[in-house]
Amino acid sequence: MTTAIANTPKPPYYAVIFTNRLGTDTADYAETAARMVELAAEQPGFLGVESARDSGVGITVSYWRSEDDIAAWRAHAEHREARRRGREQWYAAFSLRVAKVERAYSL
Amino acid sequence: MTTAIANTPKPPYYAVIFTNRLGTDTADYAETAARMVELAAEQPGFLGVESARDSGVGITVSYWRSEDDIAAWRAHAEHREARRRGREQWYAAFSLRVAKVERAYSL
Repeated sequence: MTTAIANTPKPPYYAVIFTNRLGTDTADYAETAARMVELAAEQPGFLGVESARDSGVGITVSYWRSEDDIAAWRAHAEHREARRRGREQWYAAFSLRVAKVERAYSL
Repeated sequence: MTTAIANTPKPPYYAVIFTNRLGTDTADYAETAARMVELAAEQPGFLGVESARDSGVGITVSYWRSEDDIAAWRAHAEHREARRRGREQWYAAFSLRVAKVERAYSL
């Protein structure tokens, strides 16, 4: 998964903050995560994604134009199936937060 | 820096999403980053922090009760000095976004 700092437009827009800890069974995880980033980037309203993982935790933040765009991505069949495997197979724990970005500043 | 999934209260609350890429001069960086997490955790309105770094990018998300709490933390002298060193010494690039968490879901 290529990661960088997302070049998002001026706020407001939305962020989906997905924080997770993997369990022991990670078969197909890396391929599926990379595929989800690729697929998300094709969806209407996608603005960018940032992702980092170290030994303790993984954080992926995706940025979206609107809540409707997030809802449409959430309903995508391949994404639903990946989330199901995430809940049942890959993640020991996760937290997903939907937030409205109000201010942003870059260097 | 110990990282975990933050145990935040029910929304609404605020997230500060700090994404960065380190440059070549990282002297004192790790110690200062750990100290900032420790200090942030002592501030009024602090709700938690999540952090991950891999070879490409570091993401730290801190959670706060209100925008006023974020502003107070931003004005903290030791934090200001750490941010100055960040801009001048440590970071090749960064993006900081302040967002209002509207929904959250955990496993």
